[in-house]
Amino acid sequence: MKGIFLTALFCLGAFAVQAQSLHYASSPDKRIRLTVQTDAAGELTYALTFQNQAVIAPSSLGFVFSRPAVTLNRFAVVSVDSAKADETWKPVWGEVAQIRNQYTELAVRVADKAGSNVQMVVRFRVFNDGLGFRYEFPEQPHLKHFVVADENTQFRLTADHTTFWIPGDYDTNEYLYNTTKFSEIDPLPAAAKEKDIALQSLIGPDAVQSPLLMKTTNGLYISIFEAALLNYPVMHLRLDKARLTFRSQLVPDAVGNKAYLQTPAKTPWRTVLVSNKATDLLASKLILNLNEPSRIADPSWIKPQKFVGMWWEMHVGKADWPLASGKHGANTTNVKRYIDFAAQYGFDGVLVEGWNVGWEDWFGNWKEDVFDFVTPYPDYDIDALTAYAKQKGVRLIMHHETSGAVTNYERRMDDAYRYMVSKNINTVKTGYVGRIIPRGEHHDGQWMNKHYERVAEKAAQYKLMVASHESSRPTGLHRTYPNWLASEAARGSEFNNAPTLGINPEHTTILPFTRLLGGPMDFTPGLFRLRLNQFDSTRRQRVQTTLAKQLALFVTIYSPLQMAADLPENYLKYMDAFQFIRDVPVDWDDTQYIAAEPGDYVAVARRGKGSDDWFLGAITDENARVLPIPLTFLNTGDTYKATIYRDADNAGWDTNPEAYKIDKQRVTRKSVLNLKLTKGGGCAIRFKKVKSEK
Amino acid sequence: MKGIFLTALFCLGAFAVQAQSLHYASSPDKRIRLTVQTDAAGELTYALTFQNQAVIAPSSLGFVFSRPAVTLNRFAVVSVDSAKADETWKPVWGEVAQIRNQYTELAVRVADKAGSNVQMVVRFRVFNDGLGFRYEFPEQPHLKHFVVADENTQFRLTADHTTFWIPGDYDTNEYLYNTTKFSEIDPLPAAAKEKDIALQSLIGPDAVQSPLLMKTTNGLYISIFEAALLNYPVMHLRLDKARLTFRSQLVPDAVGNKAYLQTPAKTPWRTVLVSNKATDLLASKLILNLNEPSRIADPSWIKPQKFVGMWWEMHVGKADWPLASGKHGANTTNVKRYIDFAAQYGFDGVLVEGWNVGWEDWFGNWKEDVFDFVTPYPDYDIDALTAYAKQKGVRLIMHHETSGAVTNYERRMDDAYRYMVSKNINTVKTGYVGRIIPRGEHHDGQWMNKHYERVAEKAAQYKLMVASHESSRPTGLHRTYPNWLASEAARGSEFNNAPTLGINPEHTTILPFTRLLGGPMDFTPGLFRLRLNQFDSTRRQRVQTTLAKQLALFVTIYSPLQMAADLPENYLKYMDAFQFIRDVPVDWDDTQYIAAEPGDYVAVARRGKGSDDWFLGAITDENARVLPIPLTFLNTGDTYKATIYRDADNAGWDTNPEAYKIDKQRVTRKSVLNLKLTKGGGCAIRFKKVKSEK
Repeated sequence: MKGIFLTALFCLGAFAVQAQSLHYASSPDKRIRLTVQTDAAGELTYALTFQNQAVIAPSSLGFVFSRPAVTLNRFAVVSVDSAKADETWKPVWGEVAQIRNQYTELAVRVADKAGSNVQMVVRFRVFNDGLGFRYEFPEQPHLKHFVVADENTQFRLTADHTTFWIPGDYDTNEYLYNTTKFSEIDPLPAAAKEKDIALQSLIGPDAVQSPLLMKTTNGLYISIFEAALLNYPVMHLRLDKARLTFRSQLVPDAVGNKAYLQTPAKTPWRTVLVSNKATDLLASKLILNLNEPSRIADPSWIKPQKFVGMWWEMHVGKADWPLASGKHGANTTNVKRYIDFAAQYGFDGVLVEGWNVGWEDWFGNWKEDVFDFVTPYPDYDIDALTAYAKQKGVRLIMHHETSGAVTNYERRMDDAYRYMVSKNINTVKTGYVGRIIPRGEHHDGQWMNKHYERVAEKAAQYKLMVASHESSRPTGLHRTYPNWLASEAARGSEFNNAPTLGINPEHTTILPFTRLLGGPMDFTPGLFRLRLNQFDSTRRQRVQTTLAKQLALFVTIYSPLQMAADLPENYLKYMDAFQFIRDVPVDWDDTQYIAAEPGDYVAVARRGKGSDDWFLGAITDENARVLPIPLTFLNTGDTYKATIYRDADNAGWDTNPEAYKIDKQRVTRKSVLNLKLTKGGGCAIRFKKVKSEK
Repeated sequence: MKGIFLTALFCLGAFAVQAQSLHYASSPDKRIRLTVQTDAAGELTYALTFQNQAVIAPSSLGFVFSRPAVTLNRFAVVSVDSAKADETWKPVWGEVAQIRNQYTELAVRVADKAGSNVQMVVRFRVFNDGLGFRYEFPEQPHLKHFVVADENTQFRLTADHTTFWIPGDYDTNEYLYNTTKFSEIDPLPAAAKEKDIALQSLIGPDAVQSPLLMKTTNGLYISIFEAALLNYPVMHLRLDKARLTFRSQLVPDAVGNKAYLQTPAKTPWRTVLVSNKATDLLASKLILNLNEPSRIADPSWIKPQKFVGMWWEMHVGKADWPLASGKHGANTTNVKRYIDFAAQYGFDGVLVEGWNVGWEDWFGNWKEDVFDFVTPYPDYDIDALTAYAKQKGVRLIMHHETSGAVTNYERRMDDAYRYMVSKNINTVKTGYVGRIIPRGEHHDGQWMNKHYERVAEKAAQYKLMVASHESSRPTGLHRTYPNWLASEAARGSEFNNAPTLGINPEHTTILPFTRLLGGPMDFTPGLFRLRLNQFDSTRRQRVQTTLAKQLALFVTIYSPLQMAADLPENYLKYMDAFQFIRDVPVDWDDTQYIAAEPGDYVAVARRGKGSDDWFLGAITDENARVLPIPLTFLNTGDTYKATIYRDADNAGWDTNPEAYKIDKQRVTRKSVLNLKLTKGGGCAIRFKKVKSEK
């Protein structure tokens, strides 16, 4: 946090202990106000208002440690420090060229009143768009190593809000969202409907996941989440319906503990985003601002990328991962075809899944020594392909499916990364399908979160970029590790192929309000063949979008790593529409969220990195709608040629999904486009500045 | 098993299923007879006799799998194969120059009668000194990956034998032995007395450990144990007192499963040693013979070693491991002193503990990132010491204490071993003190046993030798991995410093009948200062042996890696006795057990590798005794100069432990020495062939 401006406003003295105390902090724009207090009994609470409306009612804070055996729920305030910060920083890549980090800070140091002598600091930061706070355990005489049994952080609501939730689960976040009143949250039946999730570890009937979005009856959007999840388990949320309260539910390890910490220690930031405008929530940089600056001194080798790959054809049944399947996709000839396609149409990379020995029994056996990550199948001539790709100006992207056997991966990571470097490969897609080894650990536990960080760190040592699948959902760590380009960590496009529920039309209108707040998603959009019976006429799976919506997803789902997921032969049928995928950037200087309502629609415009051209994506849920889009984001005085990829008038995801039209027109910032989106439809627009005019 | 002679004697045909069947096999010398049968219900049992005395009554065999959910306890015999073998092989190092492997084999292929279609082979080998059998799961249509919930191998006794046992424990084998009738085995009170064991994970009131020794009222010695423990948990033993039966108790993993296997799979060998002579049991090579031949093609770099080291002075309080202790032992000056001592007196190596950063909080915190194994403390100039040792013709021995954080060690092993090689170090002492990480795993579980194997394998890749401490007890794997020189894996000499029980005088007379059957022990004998108050006059700990017994342990406890454990300054006081430690070899061409009774005494003579000289060690328990030793092991016609290091007449471990005499006399094979051993005493003899005579 170099260059940050911190002013100590007041300090009550390090050892003045107060029995009762009351402290306030306001956001720089004064709209958000935080109250922190201890009552006579010593209960420590915080509360939050937005423009004088209660957002979080007084909610208690505390911990239970299993070693030493200490319950921290009654405190005396030792000292309170306050500060302000206002800095601007430039991400290595992102939605915008620079980010302002402006907040008011309150650091409350408290001591356990029950006799343990444990002290902790609760550090609050109030931004214009919300609150972040974390627990810090400084070095102190009576606490060194400690084991967290429970973190008791409350989020008390003020009413029975509309809630966008997925079931609480220690191992997967690949659920569809449910939209109900808080009081009607019912995770187990919702989870039972999800037949296509390979591994569920449900927490119980009273648990949901964060990031959790809520909407109040008076139009406030509230998100409960966390930032900078390092060396700690994921925070899920337990409901207390009677008290309208969420409580932190940390993910346990194999023996039921939550976290093993050593002073000085700190938790991730617990966050409450709040806004009366849905688009402001989407534009929030609070999560990123609460993360530490990049640990990669020279990020010049980190490059946003667009890629194609040997992947979707396994899902749709043309090919398969195992050699023994008899239709092994990752063979030399087939991958050459992808390299040719990537080179011809300007893609950076070609992902290849199923390249390495081990797929014959990779899943479902809790087997440890599945893959070695350095042994290609005999029909995959990796050296020839490396040379061919290099000659064509394309890079192979390596796939490291761990099968959840993470101990096996960790002991082979150095060899695997050296192997990648030797093959001129600089990006790895990691996968964690199945139950974790160490057995008893969960995808979302402390041990695994440390693993994901270890991967980012070690990959950086080898100058490798990472896209992680089946990892815990991101919490802004791409600021700290910008080589960790993206994660899946939600229901991604592969679920279009899932037989039971697939991906319903609203899913991609909720993702930006939930999962995407934490960081880029390797969603893999761009499906052009929307009935998935291409290689097997009996298959009923279909993509619940139009083709135009698939284009729009390249803009609405931000990621520096975007796959054009469909098969080359499917793109070749629609080369005019494919042009949008070729043109759309993966790195941006500016982003403006234009219109959004969770579960209904999202429209966003972005300006390419170092470019005058804007791109717009607009998507809708299962309802057709017209979105009026004022083009006020365009430069004053400039004229743009808009190429509009829209749903055909007779299109609809369920009836005629592949029907689209491409319109071209000249526009200026004074223009307003009324985008007609069909059911499950969307619209993608490229605005090319017309150089000769003006 | 190259060169083995296998004859198929008969084969009943692979798919002839028998409802009831009865099969026999006898040892080559016909004294031991095995009966295997299935009854009408399909129960599969084996029974064993020795010279027509029942050793194991009919005992059932079977399994429970948790995945697939199958209980295997009713079988139909599919086929029975029989064979004989007789081969001789040469160990890389050992007690003898060559080993005969002679047995009769019976392989019974059975199919589950309950409908799972699972088949398994129980392979029995009957040797002249006992039985080995294992379960094999061949590749088959209805079983590929499977999870073992329980192995139900019974050992039904024929009477209430005297039993030498330690409490069943998943994490430690460092107990003193208890000697009771089978019916009086009572593990929990015995374990409760053991205040000095850092981590106990007791199985329960009905569980003991193997190797388990028994003695019958008619003088049979019976040992229940296992061989070739690879990819499987340790087999402990559950008691059923009513039925006079032991049943296999496998060590569970973090979620309660026992083993994850994939066909073709095999368990370790379950073994029953039986003899009417105690010395024959000690001389048995059955365990080694059941292990696979060496996997190290060129073992020329593997060298038995004698060493001294920076270790005992921490135990006795002169120094400490952590730098922050203020009396850091592993500093450059101090280690130079050990190098000088080793060089002057002909030792191969100098062990250095506490050389690396991390000891300040290494124990008791279940911390994962404790040591990195490549960062010396600043006062330890490893490069200077490497150069100094090389110049003096001595090697440093590296210590890798993992603190039980095995995931951490595994991800750093390559770097650590490369570091060792770069420092001219070729031997590592590993340590696993404390609770295991992956959390929930145990020292004796499948995951850890795979780890120990992985260490042996990887160390071999770097041409490193290993002595493992706090590992599971060995099962003859030093045949397969001869670079794995020794393990601790029992109560070793460091417990002489434990305040509560220490090491009682009988302990070392039981070890050869139990723990040492599995392989060499890094016991670290050779203590000359027997009251351990040298640096703190208030300390009450004392070694419960005489000095002469400490010398004898170099012979009675076989190991290719022997430490002279005491401080140089203590050796310098008794240089005439120290001469025996200088002279005694660590590799042998011949070994003859002369007299032994578990819990009472052991006397053994060994001839040095490529030498005519013999060495004898004789030890007793808390009782003084005279052991008549006929020197029939000496060459006919040759005369030897015997240097006899014996207890002084007024010696006694509790009264005058450091009193010894050195007698010299000429002897031939016709001589008989009557060795007078005092309470806790012993005698060590070097027989040097007198070249000029004859």
